[in-house]
Amino acid sequence: MTAEARPGAPVPSTDPRTGTVRAHPAREAGPADVHRAVTAAHRTLDALADRPRRAALLHAAADLLDAARPEILAAADAETALGEIRLTGELARTTHQLRTFAQTAADGGYLDVRIDPADPATGRPDLRRTKAPLGVAAVFAAGNFPLAFSVPGGDTASALAAGCPVVVKAHPGHPETGELCARLLRRAAESVGLPADVLTTVHGFTAGTHLVQHPLTAAVGFTGSLRGGRALHDLAAARPRPIPFHGELGSLNPVLVTERAAATRPEEIGTGLAASFTLGHGQYCTKPGLVLLPAGHPALEKAAVTAAAQVPAAPLLDPRIRDAYLTGAAHRTTLPGVEVLLAPGPAPTPDAPLAVRPGILAVAAEDLHDELLEECFGPLTVLVRYHDDTDLHAALTRLPGTLTATLHHAPDEPPARTRPLLARLTPLAGRLVLNSWPTGVAVTPAMQHGGPYPAATTPTTSVGTTAVHRWLRPVTYQDTPPELLPAELRD
Amino acid sequence: MTAEARPGAPVPSTDPRTGTVRAHPAREAGPADVHRAVTAAHRTLDALADRPRRAALLHAAADLLDAARPEILAAADAETALGEIRLTGELARTTHQLRTFAQTAADGGYLDVRIDPADPATGRPDLRRTKAPLGVAAVFAAGNFPLAFSVPGGDTASALAAGCPVVVKAHPGHPETGELCARLLRRAAESVGLPADVLTTVHGFTAGTHLVQHPLTAAVGFTGSLRGGRALHDLAAARPRPIPFHGELGSLNPVLVTERAAATRPEEIGTGLAASFTLGHGQYCTKPGLVLLPAGHPALEKAAVTAAAQVPAAPLLDPRIRDAYLTGAAHRTTLPGVEVLLAPGPAPTPDAPLAVRPGILAVAAEDLHDELLEECFGPLTVLVRYHDDTDLHAALTRLPGTLTATLHHAPDEPPARTRPLLARLTPLAGRLVLNSWPTGVAVTPAMQHGGPYPAATTPTTSVGTTAVHRWLRPVTYQDTPPELLPAELRD
Repeated sequence: MTAEARPGAPVPSTDPRTGTVRAHPAREAGPADVHRAVTAAHRTLDALADRPRRAALLHAAADLLDAARPEILAAADAETALGEIRLTGELARTTHQLRTFAQTAADGGYLDVRIDPADPATGRPDLRRTKAPLGVAAVFAAGNFPLAFSVPGGDTASALAAGCPVVVKAHPGHPETGELCARLLRRAAESVGLPADVLTTVHGFTAGTHLVQHPLTAAVGFTGSLRGGRALHDLAAARPRPIPFHGELGSLNPVLVTERAAATRPEEIGTGLAASFTLGHGQYCTKPGLVLLPAGHPALEKAAVTAAAQVPAAPLLDPRIRDAYLTGAAHRTTLPGVEVLLAPGPAPTPDAPLAVRPGILAVAAEDLHDELLEECFGPLTVLVRYHDDTDLHAALTRLPGTLTATLHHAPDEPPARTRPLLARLTPLAGRLVLNSWPTGVAVTPAMQHGGPYPAATTPTTSVGTTAVHRWLRPVTYQDTPPELLPAELRD
Repeated sequence: MTAEARPGAPVPSTDPRTGTVRAHPAREAGPADVHRAVTAAHRTLDALADRPRRAALLHAAADLLDAARPEILAAADAETALGEIRLTGELARTTHQLRTFAQTAADGGYLDVRIDPADPATGRPDLRRTKAPLGVAAVFAAGNFPLAFSVPGGDTASALAAGCPVVVKAHPGHPETGELCARLLRRAAESVGLPADVLTTVHGFTAGTHLVQHPLTAAVGFTGSLRGGRALHDLAAARPRPIPFHGELGSLNPVLVTERAAATRPEEIGTGLAASFTLGHGQYCTKPGLVLLPAGHPALEKAAVTAAAQVPAAPLLDPRIRDAYLTGAAHRTTLPGVEVLLAPGPAPTPDAPLAVRPGILAVAAEDLHDELLEECFGPLTVLVRYHDDTDLHAALTRLPGTLTATLHHAPDEPPARTRPLLARLTPLAGRLVLNSWPTGVAVTPAMQHGGPYPAATTPTTSVGTTAVHRWLRPVTYQDTPPELLPAELRD
């Protein structure tokens, strides 16, 4: 992770369909710019202490984003080529998320108030616990979600709901979309009587490192690559005053198919897999990247290959991601024992230089190389054929931490068979999926989007209302007169 | 933080009253010993998944500790010189804590179960969230609490309640007490049908670093010094798979006295301060180490000095702590502008080589040196005299993160005066104390024992029932048949 610092340099917005630069919607931030952004954000903490006003801000932001849908979709599609259907859905999810967190802020249940009245018998004082915002949140926008995990995304919504001002490190893949959304969020703040600086953006690689290291930055939210994320995690831990680094650094999302499931639903599982690993052209963090399935089920494999072969080539988000996909996929095909069922590769046409074709590889469980246990971002999945339980359990032992783990079983399979399998998957994952697919993440209170490292660096979630806890710390008031207590702690 | 690795070397138990070695109750653990302890602990995870049995374990442990009170008090007093009264109270607190966490485990409310039923209209799946244990917890025993923050202490109780087996790095200040308690806890496990290895101990400095670095260690609880704790924090963050490090690394516990409070209650505040900063001979993590008080109130200062001067010299926990106290106190007296109101120092008698006398220093707010903002472990406090609000606010700006912050005000002082002062203290502390003293930590649901760095390295608590969250991560089950769901997630 290195890049030249170019404070003031124009930031290009690039069309991934053609590779051409469309505009320069922002400038790279130097240390002084980052300092200005963080201190301006810090000055809004007192204003953000007004919980109903934070709720109003989040509602107003959702309304303004909805009202600007045409411009937002145009910018996001031009910068990401994700297409209008996907982006329409993503914007709806984003504004739904903002409104959900508005409700979270208004309701206040997340403060988890606990009151222990004084006990004269034991001399115990009156103790009242609530939660306080940590301070300025640094949020790193994600390349693959220009809205839902970027400037107006989940980390921004949960941090503002918690009362934390936000400085977003915008993503170079969609700077125009980021700036457009930032303007709307800042306008939303002013419309409810809050300072615009409750949200600011900074651009540029080195701006990100300065942001993590700034003394007034209190916590970080990150969605991105293992390499970049780990480097920022290490910076956060090495600060004079370390801060929480909530990073999502990559996920394999293994799928385990039982013998009975493969025998009874080969078509359904094969086509379901193809649809899931090529969704968004394999650029979802919950893409199933590895499938443990019984050897000797050609019907299932064939169904997956047939369905995936019909998925048209499409551009990946940017040249770096495309190169990593092609290199990573090509390297995996050269590993001993790896069989290419559907060849991944470029689909160069004069007008689509970033387009790639999906790929399916297969390997026997005894040939499960370490490289196959790493995420390959993009439309690639690896079938790992096991012959027996020994095979299967040896493979399960080696799986890394992951956002999701999926079990396909037959409804009539005895729990004595499936329960131990689920018990093996549970320590690996933040979400267990049964007879379904991991892509598609509902924004609801019970959602958990996180998991053991490297899926996430802290045991928190980046999706769902409990994400608000990323930005809070408990505070207890002892023997405090009512007029000095926060409202939620009064009798 | 360096020490020679001496696997197998006998660990001495020393009498701090005389400095003589009493016995060698344990041996230092080498890497192989640590590996054995952690893997043995890891193998008990499945057995610990039985929540009612965990509750039974914690009850049984409390009963066995209570039954062994004479032996425990004898060992602990011989190794720490904390005295029978204090240790009787600490044991009662410890067994109360174990029983409280038994109730937490049995009750299961901490699992914070959330269920979002399937919504056929939107296609949303059935999602059910609970919390799962992280894995093996490494717990570092604290020097100043041989029971309540050591082998049978809060981290052990909360980790076992969460379903995490525990490996304790025993403290060299009380190895015999640690081994005695460990035997009782292991016996308690066997008495309820759990493996004894749900808790093991390791001894020796390098055992601690190996414990933090072991691949199967999933989280760390630490109470101790800034230097040692920070080194272990950095090791935990630098692991191939980083893990949560819940460290309590030192706390200044500032007290702010308003002009009106000083004018109306000088005696009460002065004697209260003396009692609080000398309690346990200043070896509490919540000792008030710095007092911001208005200049020109000799009655308050005199009351504090008079009361503290009557506190007899007493031995500190070990030679290292005594030396650090004497050196730290002596250095502070040499700082420009520092006035010695009560001289700290050694009280050498032939039979009490570790005994020291309490000290009170005073300094004008404009002379508030950086060194005075660091904790000096032991019976020392520093009065910082402010002349006006400018003085006071300048000092407040420089205070580090702290476990507690205390405000002494007059009951008739207008909230318009006290509210901004409390608002300045709140971002610094985990617990705000009004018109009382920070020492004395109630083990109740509303207690928060933690605070911004260096008071704590994560926004969690080490005391109170919510401490269980240190050892848990959320897990969501999607579309999972009832027979495969954890009991708490079934309809």
